[in-house]
Formats: sequence, structure tokens, C-alpha cells
Amino acid sequence: MKRIAVLNGPNLDRLGKREPEIYGSSTLDDLANGLREQFPEVDFEFYQSNHEGSLVDKISELADKGCDGIVFNPAAYSHTSIALRDAISGSKIPTVEVHISNIHSRERFRHHSHTGSVSKGVIAGLGLQGYSLATQALIA
Amino acid sequence: MKRIAVLNGPNLDRLGKREPEIYGSSTLDDLANGLREQFPEVDFEFYQSNHEGSLVDKISELADKGCDGIVFNPAAYSHTSIALRDAISGSKIPTVEVHISNIHSRERFRHHSHTGSVSKGVIAGLGLQGYSLATQALIA
Amino acid sequence: MKRIAVLNGPNLDRLGKREPEIYGSSTLDDLANGLREQFPEVDFEFYQSNHEGSLVDKISELADKGCDGIVFNPAAYSHTSIALRDAISGSKIPTVEVHISNIHSRERFRHHSHTGSVSKGVIAGLGLQGYSLATQALIA
Amino acid sequence: MKRIAVLNGPNLDRLGKREPEIYGSSTLDDLANGLREQFPEVDFEFYQSNHEGSLVDKISELADKGCDGIVFNPAAYSHTSIALRDAISGSKIPTVEVHISNIHSRERFRHHSHTGSVSKGVIAGLGLQGYSLATQALIA
Amino acid sequence: MKRIAVLNGPNLDRLGKREPEIYGSSTLDDLANGLREQFPEVDFEFYQSNHEGSLVDKISELADKGCDGIVFNPAAYSHTSIALRDAISGSKIPTVEVHISNIHSRERFRHHSHTGSVSKGVIAGLGLQGYSLATQALIA
Amino acid sequence: MKRIAVLNGPNLDRLGKREPEIYGSSTLDDLANGLREQFPEVDFEFYQSNHEGSLVDKISELADKGCDGIVFNPAAYSHTSIALRDAISGSKIPTVEVHISNIHSRERFRHHSHTGSVSKGVIAGLGLQGYSLATQALIA
Amino acid sequence: MKRIAVLNGPNLDRLGKREPEIYGSSTLDDLANGLREQFPEVDFEFYQSNHEGSLVDKISELADKGCDGIVFNPAAYSHTSIALRDAISGSKIPTVEVHISNIHSRERFRHHSHTGSVSKGVIAGLGLQGYSLATQALIA
Amino acid sequence: MKRIAVLNGPNLDRLGKREPEIYGSSTLDDLANGLREQFPEVDFEFYQSNHEGSLVDKISELADKGCDGIVFNPAAYSHTSIALRDAISGSKIPTVEVHISNIHSRERFRHHSHTGSVSKGVIAGLGLQGYSLATQALIA
Amino acid sequence: MKRIAVLNGPNLDRLGKREPEIYGSSTLDDLANGLREQFPEVDFEFYQSNHEGSLVDKISELADKGCDGIVFNPAAYSHTSIALRDAISGSKIPTVEVHISNIHSRERFRHHSHTGSVSKGVIAGLGLQGYSLATQALIA
Amino acid sequence: MKRIAVLNGPNLDRLGKREPEIYGSSTLDDLANGLREQFPEVDFEFYQSNHEGSLVDKISELADKGCDGIVFNPAAYSHTSIALRDAISGSKIPTVEVHISNIHSRERFRHHSHTGSVSKGVIAGLGLQGYSLATQALIA
Amino acid sequence: MKRIAVLNGPNLDRLGKREPEIYGSSTLDDLANGLREQFPEVDFEFYQSNHEGSLVDKISELADKGCDGIVFNPAAYSHTSIALRDAISGSKIPTVEVHISNIHSRERFRHHSHTGSVSKGVIAGLGLQGYSLATQALIA
Amino acid sequence: MKRIAVLNGPNLDRLGKREPEIYGSSTLDDLANGLREQFPEVDFEFYQSNHEGSLVDKISELADKGCDGIVFNPAAYSHTSIALRDAISGSKIPTVEVHISNIHSRERFRHHSHTGSVSKGVIAGLGLQGYSLATQALIA
Repeated sequence: MKRIAVLNGPNLDRLGKREPEIYGSSTLDDLANGLREQFPEVDFEFYQSNHEGSLVDKISELADKGCDGIVFNPAAYSHTSIALRDAISGSKIPTVEVHISNIHSRERFRHHSHTGSVSKGVIAGLGLQGYSLATQALIA
Repeated sequence: MKRIAVLNGPNLDRLGKREPEIYGSSTLDDLANGLREQFPEVDFEFYQSNHEGSLVDKISELADKGCDGIVFNPAAYSHTSIALRDAISGSKIPTVEVHISNIHSRERFRHHSHTGSVSKGVIAGLGLQGYSLATQALIA
Repeated sequence: MKRIAVLNGPNLDRLGKREPEIYGSSTLDDLANGLREQFPEVDFEFYQSNHEGSLVDKISELADKGCDGIVFNPAAYSHTSIALRDAISGSKIPTVEVHISNIHSRERFRHHSHTGSVSKGVIAGLGLQGYSLATQALIA
Repeated sequence: MKRIAVLNGPNLDRLGKREPEIYGSSTLDDLANGLREQFPEVDFEFYQSNHEGSLVDKISELADKGCDGIVFNPAAYSHTSIALRDAISGSKIPTVEVHISNIHSRERFRHHSHTGSVSKGVIAGLGLQGYSLATQALIA
Repeated sequence: MKRIAVLNGPNLDRLGKREPEIYGSSTLDDLANGLREQFPEVDFEFYQSNHEGSLVDKISELADKGCDGIVFNPAAYSHTSIALRDAISGSKIPTVEVHISNIHSRERFRHHSHTGSVSKGVIAGLGLQGYSLATQALIA
Repeated sequence: MKRIAVLNGPNLDRLGKREPEIYGSSTLDDLANGLREQFPEVDFEFYQSNHEGSLVDKISELADKGCDGIVFNPAAYSHTSIALRDAISGSKIPTVEVHISNIHSRERFRHHSHTGSVSKGVIAGLGLQGYSLATQALIA
Repeated sequence: MKRIAVLNGPNLDRLGKREPEIYGSSTLDDLANGLREQFPEVDFEFYQSNHEGSLVDKISELADKGCDGIVFNPAAYSHTSIALRDAISGSKIPTVEVHISNIHSRERFRHHSHTGSVSKGVIAGLGLQGYSLATQALIA
Repeated sequence: MKRIAVLNGPNLDRLGKREPEIYGSSTLDDLANGLREQFPEVDFEFYQSNHEGSLVDKISELADKGCDGIVFNPAAYSHTSIALRDAISGSKIPTVEVHISNIHSRERFRHHSHTGSVSKGVIAGLGLQGYSLATQALIA
Repeated sequence: MKRIAVLNGPNLDRLGKREPEIYGSSTLDDLANGLREQFPEVDFEFYQSNHEGSLVDKISELADKGCDGIVFNPAAYSHTSIALRDAISGSKIPTVEVHISNIHSRERFRHHSHTGSVSKGVIAGLGLQGYSLATQALIA
Repeated sequence: MKRIAVLNGPNLDRLGKREPEIYGSSTLDDLANGLREQFPEVDFEFYQSNHEGSLVDKISELADKGCDGIVFNPAAYSHTSIALRDAISGSKIPTVEVHISNIHSRERFRHHSHTGSVSKGVIAGLGLQGYSLATQALIA
Repeated sequence: MKRIAVLNGPNLDRLGKREPEIYGSSTLDDLANGLREQFPEVDFEFYQSNHEGSLVDKISELADKGCDGIVFNPAAYSHTSIALRDAISGSKIPTVEVHISNIHSRERFRHHSHTGSVSKGVIAGLGLQGYSLATQALIA
Repeated sequence: MKRIAVLNGPNLDRLGKREPEIYGSSTLDDLANGLREQFPEVDFEFYQSNHEGSLVDKISELADKGCDGIVFNPAAYSHTSIALRDAISGSKIPTVEVHISNIHSRERFRHHSHTGSVSKGVIAGLGLQGYSLATQALIA
């Protein structure tokens, strides 16, 4: 059974509450339930934090206990965190980065992704479906 | 029945021939067959050209005859073609951009995508599977 | 009788179809008819292509057969094509560049015009009337 | 009867005196006479100043007393004056910017136009004829 | 009794007339009356000019006759005027810069303030109340 | 009764201890007492953290329980945190940013404020009085 | 017998016609004849196109049918075409880039060569002799 | 007896586990034991955290309780944290920054060190020995 | 008898009053008297203005009435005024630019001089003596 | 008999010793012998120095005593020496610059060549053969 | 016995004479004596030159005769010399770069070190002790 | 008697030989004779070198033996030499930099002067007279 961690970064705890007209009304719990239902053969772990350091801690923990893949939405930290970049790169765990909105269409400071540059791939702009597609990519 | 066009840009005619150790041995024909098999409910049109202008022509033609979505790998033209950007943006057809390799990990001049910035979303680094994921995203 | 070529670049074949609320409902044919009517003393040649190379070919052909002026809307190629810049500059034909919308008010990558820098002048933002004004300027 | 103001910025008082081999021997008075003759149906107001502040004052005055259009050659102030940009933008009067020479072919610091970016359109490189073409565009 | 000068730069003469839906309907006179009422213990001097040089003149005059503080809204000149920067810096008069709108949220060329960098402080985005807060800060 | 949160970012716990010759000898407690005394009609909440993530958590919490305004001194995080920018922007709570020193006069990397660009306004350089002025602006 | 392709990019069809005072009066045909005469032991193929895509097609064709070396003058496309860069790099055919004029002495946008960076070498500024020297280098 | 704190930033908890072929097999505990053995006259305190805020907290605590020197490897935070820069600078504790690898030979975004610019000195590229050399420098 | 104009830009009216410890106690009148005494064979005209437009006016006037040379200290306008650059360049009057302090040692935005780039020469950092040296250079 | 000087810059004295797997085992002496043998009709002078100033001296000497051409490999000084640029440009001796490796494929700071921009042409990436080709070009 | 060369670049001959209040009163001779005393087991060679070329010569000589390590303070040449970078890199001798002052805290043009980027490590800001620490690092 | 050193940098040995139509026919000897004649009260020392290191040596020697001023034309080294900048700055000898041509009107890489930024003043564009004016400034 594949172990896949789904990590979400800052402000994603507010998914479904913040600007629902843009981001929809699904919450992180809805996302977790949806993925567990769609991929019964996967052993999922879900984690969200607004703290850069806690996300580094979590990746370090996953590297220690073993993990077959990470679906990672680092949100704003994609663009500022070299520490998360080093964590992913050092963990050797295959990672697919997900962004709900299309970072290429937003402000210039969201175009570059430190974490994306050391991930296996990046999926952006496809909403919550991006998590499902990323899981498929890690299973394949 | 959904009509989806799969467009491939410059040098992708050599897929499966060029640097197979990196890009694998599947050709564009293999890709087409795979997608037709995986999505029998979709009416696919496949097109590849090394010509920026021909890709603009094709998108113009699709806009005229109607099309429910484009899976587009503009390859090198992503980074240089404002003409393709304007074509996608003017066609109003939902487009998902696909890159076989992770453009975020390559040379700096491949980080920015003119065409990606007017697409619905971008999938990069997940190999040929990216086309399949993009098709799913357009059907959803 | 003056020979003036009116060249239009990528995506302008869709004029009158694409985003009519912005660009109006006149097509390239309407433009041609209007100019022929307004300037009966001019021998017009009209040409549109989505291909950078075809536009270079056309300018090369005009230089060979002789031409008194070019009204040129290179659209997206203004901002990316050094080949068209070299073609205009090498042809020695007086050229007035036209942009339907005001490139100075749009995205930063539309501010600079390679082709405009070797043209006699540039008219931007005045809609289809720009072609008529450019023709006047070439006749004068 | 349309009221159109023709505003000229710094150093244009020397038109016809300064570098006549480049700019020709017509003066601002000649320009005014020519325009009045060509457009008898227009109520013209002519104004030149070397002072950025006086041009702002004038635009403010035009906004107060009403004006159907401005033909504006801000000369060097195009490239440095945010105050004039704000004045045009705040006045809501349709403005067409004119440059006698082609700013796209000159030094890099003349490529960008603050004032042009809030004007309806920009005409550059067509000599004094640019004023006439701009007037046509405002009447249309 | 404290002497405080309230200086306003280009286009602020149109306050209350220009874009009232954004800037409100208060004029500079209303502002002056409001401040005099709120701070009866202050000897105010009010001055507005669209001329960079006149503002430099005024600051020079204030330095000569003595002044306990300047509330300064240089508007567009904040971003372009080294002359005003030198005037403030040379006058040794404590200055608080005020911007009615939030310059940090506007175009990139409005982010940096030459004059703000030599002022005691900067208040932006708080509307006309900014002038009152600046006066408080100078009195304190 | 208005609920206003006063948030302070990294190193501000050392206020009154660190470099008192520059920052004065008042502590955050003194600040809190002063504001409570000056604005008895306001229901204040005070919070300081050196952790970017904790500040994001706090803003998320405020958005959930309701809050009429935030007086926010993000200190160094102003210049680096897109996560806080997204938190403020997503919370919809009116925020006034305060900096004790004048960020416009300091090192270049302190000129731009990510958080300030999504705040209602920014007050910089007016010392602890900035908090009082920001509170006034939120009440108004 | 060595097979060497001599490819010429945009506007080079006008060699000997365009600005002969700079480029001399030799045409591409003269060039071909000269090379065939100087290197009777080489099996030459000559190709010119103004189309970026056609040059990509040609390199793809050469990679398929086999070729011992390419002498390539991509002209303006050197500076803008990532597609040609990818074509050369993917073909594995040793390529020597030739520029008739010295790109290092011309406008800044001609200094960098995308195609040159994946070629074996670059010869610039030595006129038509550059083609002969490049052929020698490929034979050696 | 000198009190020296040895602080380690993000991902350094994985030292000796992560990429041992590059970083060797020594852990942070081995480092601590080695330093205690080499410098018996020093009262060491060791601290590692993946949290920027916790490192700021720790420096604040050291400033309060007194400390004769800090050996600091901020890892990725060197390049992104203005908050740590302010913490070191405000603490007045002499600090020597250590990097295990040579930041000057790595990616461009690792060349500049915010924290290094307010430290007494920087030692980079000398592996774990860097900590020992830094300690010597602080004792001297 | 040579006619030489000595023009001074913004804030130089305060010479001898502003920061005398840096700029000395000589005023512009002292400067004029000194130059008249040192060069009795020169017909001097002295002019100072804080207005960019007035300086443009003056240069225009000098070009009309004839003038053998300009000693010009444009102060802050050196770095921002393209209008003055155009005025000098169009007047054809030999101009030597003077700066009292060494612009090369000051803030970066004072390094480049628009006006200096079209002057015959530039003298910086030699105090009021610079005016005398510039006069010598114009006489020679 | 043509006099051609072959100048080599810093570190080229180690040719054939340094990194022979990259640069081959030929020394500068081998190069000289090869050129003398290949071009018996040329009067060669060979010179190598690690000193920028000595290379300037040598070019000055060549200009004095007369020389028909320089084959120059300035190595690292290409990218940093304006003094050598001025020396070549002032000597009026036709110069062809040679680089053994392809500077276009190396680090960014090796892309631009100060000396190349004032040479007749540049040959890069063709190994020691580049010297022979450059000699041919100078003879032609 | 280990052979270590201690190389010092431009202006370091004046150590102990120039600005002793900053750099202390020790001379290069004092430094040599101190190192010989501290490391009796090392065979030191000391060399100082103000000439970039002489330093390249010396490194070339060391590579020829063999050397176990270089302690190198290239001073100003760190920031400008690609020739020294190439010399170090080509010599294969382990090098530790030393800067007496902290280059990270000085002018921006001193932040990047060409020579440091090809050295094993860099020690900056620790005064003359840096040479001793570098020697230790080379011995280890 | 004042001791003044007149130092000239690279390529100035060719003054009067190189491009006499631009630089005139006076040599460095003529310059020396002229200065000795004009300033009999000065004890001059003249020195020219094409070597950056020799110029550093000379300034070091002047600092040792004492010198009242340096007139320095570093030519190309102005723009590239931090070593000369450090030498001037460390010598504490008042230095006036001279450039024969106007560096502000030439290529962009000649606008900034490293050495000028630590000199007392800079005189550019006034030909050989610049040396005489610089001497006057040092005497005053």
C-alpha cells in the first residue's frame, strides 16, 4: 500500500471560508475525504500548517519514517522558502507541487517557485482537482 | 461527445527518437493511441507543427469550427511566442498547457510561459502522463 | 499611382470575430474596402499571415518588385521578431507601423517594438482609423 | 463646434529655429495656421510651455471649462512626468499624444511614455503631420 | 503658537472635482477649514502648486522665515523630484509626507518616494485624515 | 464597542530593551496601556510573535471570530512574507500597517512592503505614536 | 564523402541585393558555388528559409537521414529562437554557427545567441569566408 | 568561563542522515561532543530549529540572559530572513556565521547573506571544521 | 568680449545659508562678484531658478540672443531633466557642467547626468572653484 | 611578407599542462610550430603574458613598429578589460579574436567580450584550429 | 612537511601602515612570523603583489613545482579578476580565500567573489586571525 | 613647494599618436612641459603605465614618501579597478581625476568611475586643459 502525504501551506486552513466565490466552498476536510474515496488503495496522511518551520519538520519526519510521495501545496512559501526547497531536495521523496490557481497568471512574484524547481512536477490552475491529478502521477 | 484538440509544438515530432533515455521511446502516435483508448468518450484531434504560424492557424480554425478544450504543449514557443498567447486568449477555448519535463528546474529562460499565463492551468514535469491528466481536467 | 502594401500579422485574420466588444465588428475585408474607397488614387495590396516567415517573404517580394510604402501591423511579432525588423530595415521601403490598441497602456512586454524602431513612424491606439492615417502619412 | 486644445511641451517654442535640417523650418505658428485651415469646423486653442507645472495648470483649466479633445506633444516630459500623466488621466478628456520624431528609434530613455500610457493613442515619427492625424482621430 | 505649513503638489487643486467617487467631494478649502477647526492652537499656512519649482521656492521661503513643521503631499513629484528632496533635506524643517491613496498598492513607479526618504515619516492611504494625523505627529 | 487587534511582529518583544537610544524606553506593555487609556471605547487585543506562521494563525483566528480592524507592525516580515500578505488580503479585515522607523530612509530591501500593499494604509517613521494614529484611522 | 548542410536563416535570400555596400555583391548561389569548388570532397546540401519552423523541419530531416555537420547562419533567429536551439541540441549533429557581421559590435540584443550556445563553435564578423572556415572546422 | 551558543537553522537536524556522501556522517550531536572536547574552557549551549521564529526567540533569550558569542549556521534563512538579521543586529552579541558548503559556488540566490552582513565574520565551505574555527575566532 | 552665462538650478539660491559647514558661507552673489573680478574680459550673465521650465526658457533665450558659453550647475535637475538635456543639445552653445560636490561619491541616483551627457565637459567636487575652472575652459 | 602577431592572455602558458582532457596536450610552442609550418608565407610573432598591462604594452609596440594583423586570445581579459579594448581599437590593426572553448556555452560572465566588440571578428569553440582559421581570415 | 603558499593581493603591502585604526598595526612580516611560529610543521612561502598578472604567474609556478594549499587574500581582485579565478581553478591546488574585513557588510560590489567561487572555502571578517584559521583548514 | 604627481593610465603613452584627429597631436611630454611652465611653483612627478599593478605600486610609493596631491587619469581602469580605488582611498592623498573626453557621453560602461568615487573631484571632457585645471584645484 502506497503511503502518500498531502501537505498544505499557509492560509489553506481557510479553504472554503476565504473568498468562496473564487476558491469554492470545499474545505480541506472535503478534499481529504474526496481523495480517500477516489484512491482507496493509498495510505494518506494529511497535514496543514501556516508555519514554514513546521512544514520543514514534517518533511523531515516523513523522510525518517518513509513515504512514497508528497502532494505539496506550499502556497505563498513556494515563492519565498529556500528552507522548504532544501527540505524537499534533501528528503529524496518524489514530490508533486500543486497550486489551486494558475501562478503563471498572477503577480510576478508568484511566477517563480523555489519548491517547484526541486519537485518532480508542478500542476497549477486546475483547482482541487490538481490534488487528485498529482496523486495519480505519484502512483503511476 | 467532447471535442478536444491535442496540439504539439516544435521538435515534438521527434518524440521517441530524440534522446530516448530522457524522453522515453513513445512517439506522438503512441500518445494519440493511448489517449483515444483511455478516453473513448472524447472526439480527439491531434496536430503537431514546428511552425509558430501554423499553430496560430490551427487555433484560429478550432475557434471557428468549435472545440471544447485544447491540451497544448507549445514546447519552446511557450517562452517566446506572444502570437500564440494572443491566439489562445482570443479563441476563448479552455486550454491546459503541458510540459513533459519540469520547466521550473531547467534554464532560466524556460521558467516563464507566455502561453501558460493565459491558459486555465499548467502541468509540468510529469512526462506523457501530463497529457492524460490535462484531458481529465478539461473533461471535469 | 502609389503602390502601398497593407500587411497584417498574427491573429488579425480573426478581426471582427474575436472580442468584437473590444475590436469592433469590422473585418480585414471591410478594412480593405474602406481604404480602397478612401484612397482611390492608391494601388493597394493586402496581405495577412500568422507566419513570421511569410511576412518576411512578403517584404522581400515587395522589395524586389518595388513598393512605395508599407502600412504594417505586425501585432505580436512587433515585440519578438528581429527577423521582421531586419526585413523592414533591409527593404528600404518607408513603413508606418499601426497598432489597433494602445501598446503603451498594455502589458510591459508590449511596450517595446522591434519593428517600430526601424519604421518611419508608429500609430497606436486609434483603432482601424490608424490604417487610414498611416496611409495618409505615406502619401504625404 | 468641437473644441480641441493643441498643447506643446518643452523646447517646442524653438521649432523651426532649432536644427531645421532635422525638424524642418515650420514654426508653431505655421502649425497653428495649417491646422485652422485644414479643420475650419474645429475651435482650436494653442498653448506651449516649457514648464511642467504650467501644462498641468492648463489641463486643469481645460477640464474645468470643458474640452472635446487634446492633441498633446509633451516632448521630454512624456518620459519623466507622472504629474502630467495624472493630469491627463484625471481630466477625462480624450487625448492623442504626438511626437514629431520616432521615439522608438531614439535613446532608450525615450521609449517609455508616462503620458502616452493614459492617452487614447500615440502617433510618433510622422513630423508635423502627426498633429493633423491626431486631430482627425479626435474628430472621428 | 506652532507654525505649520500644509503644502500640496500637482493636481491636488482638483481635489473634490476629480474622480469624486474615489477621492470624495472635499476640496482643499474644506481641508484647510477642517484643520484650522481641529487645531486652533496652530498657525497654519496653506499652499498648493502644480509647479515643482514653486514648491521648492516655498520651502526655501519657509526655511528663511522659520517654520515648525511641514505637512507635505508632493503627489506625483514624490516619485520624480530630487529637487524637492534636496529642498526638504536642506531646510532642516521636520516634514511628514502624506498621500491620500496607498502608494504601496498602486503602480510600481509610485512605490518609491524621493521626498519621503528625507522626511520624518510618511502616512499613506488614509484619505484626508492623513493630514490631520500628520499635524498631530508634528505637534507631539 | 469596536474590536481592534494590535499585532506586532519579530523582535518587537525587545522594544524598550534593544537600542533604547533609538527606539526609546517604552515597552510593548507601555504601548498597550497607553492605547487602552487613550481609547477607552475600544476593545483591544494585543499579540506579539516572532513567528510568521503564528501571525498568520492569529489573523485567521481574527477573521473567524470577527474583528473591526487590525493595527499591524509586521516588522521584517513586511518585506519578505507573501503568506502574511495573503492572510491580510483573505481576512477582509481593514488593516493599517505601522512602522516605528521610516522604512523609506533605510536599506533598499525595506522600501517595499508586501503586507502594506494589501493594507488600507501605511504609517511609517512616527515612532509609537504611529499606533495611536492608526487606531484613530480605523475608528474613523 | 562527408555530408555537410549549409543552412541560412531569414533575410539571407536577399544577400547580394540588400545593402551591397555592406554585405558585398555575392549571392547565396555564389556562396554555394564557391564552397563546392573549394571542398570537392564534401557532399553539400544548401537550404535557406525565412521560416523558423521550416528550419526546425530541415534539422529534423537531417537528423533522420544522417548528416556529418551543419554550417548554420540563423541570422535574427539566433537571438530569439529556443525552438532552433532545441532542434540543434536534439539532433546531435555537430554544428558551427556563422554570422557574416560581428554580432559583438552590434546592438545589445544581438550579443547573445541561443543557437550558438548549443553549437560546437561560433564564427562571427569574417564575412562569407566564415562559411568556408566553418566547413574546414567540421571536416577537421 | 565564556558562554558561546551554537545555533543551527533549518534542515540541519538531518545532518549525517541527509546526503552523507556530501555532508559526511557526523550528526549535530557529534558536532556538539567534538566542540565540548576541543574547547573545555567554553560553556556551550546548542540549539537547532527549523523555525525562523524560534531562532529569533532564542537570540532574544540569549540577549536577555547574556552570552559572549554566537556561532550561527542559519542555513537557508541566511538568504531570506530579515527578521534574523534584525535579531542578531539588535542583540549586540558578537556572531560568526558558518556555512558547511561554499555558498559562493552554489546557486545565485545563496550568494548574499542577510545575516552574514551584520555578523562579525563569515566562514564558508570548510565543513564542520567551520564551527571549530568560528569558536576560536570568538574566543580570541 | 565673450558672453558667458552662469546658470544655477534648484536650491542653489540657498548657497551660503544651507548647511554652511558643508557648502561654505559664500553666496551666489559672492560667486558672481568673484568671477567678475577674476575674468574682467568676460561679459557675464547670472541666473538662478528653482524651476526646470524657467531654466529651459533661459537657455532658449540665450540661444536666440547669442552666447559664447554656459557654465551650468543644474543641481538635482541633472539627474531627472530630459527637457534641459534637449535644451542644451538644441541650443548649440558650448556648455560646461559644474557640481559643487562630487556626484560620483553620492547616492546612486546622482551618478548619471542627463545634462552632462550633452555638455562639452563636467567638473564635479571642486566646490565653487569649479565655476572658475569651467569659465577658463570656455574661454580657452 | 605579412606580419601577424599571435597574442595569448592569462593562463594560456599552461596550455597542454592544465586539464589536458579538456584542452588537449598541445602547448603554445606546438601551436607556434604548427602555424609557422601551415603558413610559411607569414612572418609570425608569438607573445604570451598573464599581465593585462604587458598585453597593452605589446599592442602599443605593434602599432608603433607596424603589423598586418593580430590573432588574439585574451582569455579571461576579454570579459573584464576595457584597457585592452581601447588598445586594440586605438591601434587600428585588424584583429581576430580566438577562444579555444565556446564562450557562448559557458558561464554568463563569459558571454560578453569587450575586446571582441572592437575586433574584426570572433572565432570561438573550435579549439587550436581557431588560430589557424583566424590567420586565414587575416591573410584573405 | 606540508607546503602552503600565503598570497596577498593589491594594497596589502601597506598593511600596518594604512588606516591602522581599522586594520591594526601588524604588517605582512608580522603575519608571516606569526604563522611560522604557530605552524612549525608547515613549509610556508609568502608572496605579495599589486599586479594581477604576477599573482597569476605565481599560481602557475606553484602548480608546476607542487603545493599542498594556498591561503589567498586577493583583496580587490576577488571582485574583478576572472583571470585569477581561472588560475586557481586550473591549478587544482586547494585554496582558502581570506578577507580581513567582512565583505558581506561593505559596498555591494564587494559581495561577490570570483575567486571565492572556485575556492574550497572563504573566511571573511576575522582580521589577521583569518590566515591562521585558513591554514588550519588546509592542514586538516 | 607643493609636490604633485601626475599619473596616467593605460594607452595614454600613445597620446598624440593615436587618433590625433580626436585627441590632438600633443604627447605626454608636451603635457609635462606645459604644466611645468604654467606652474613653476610646483614640484611635479610624471608617471605613465599600462599596468594596473604599477599604478597601485606608484600610489603606494607616493603615500610613503609624501605627496600633496595627485592628478590622475586612470583611463580605462577608472571603470574596472577596485584595486586603484582602494589605493587612492588608502593613501589619503587628495586626488583629482581627469578624463580627456567626456565619459558621460560615451558608452554606458564608461559612466561609472570606481576611482572617481573616492577622489576629491572629477574633470571630464575638457581635453588636456583638464590636467591644468586639476592642478589649480589641488593648489587652491
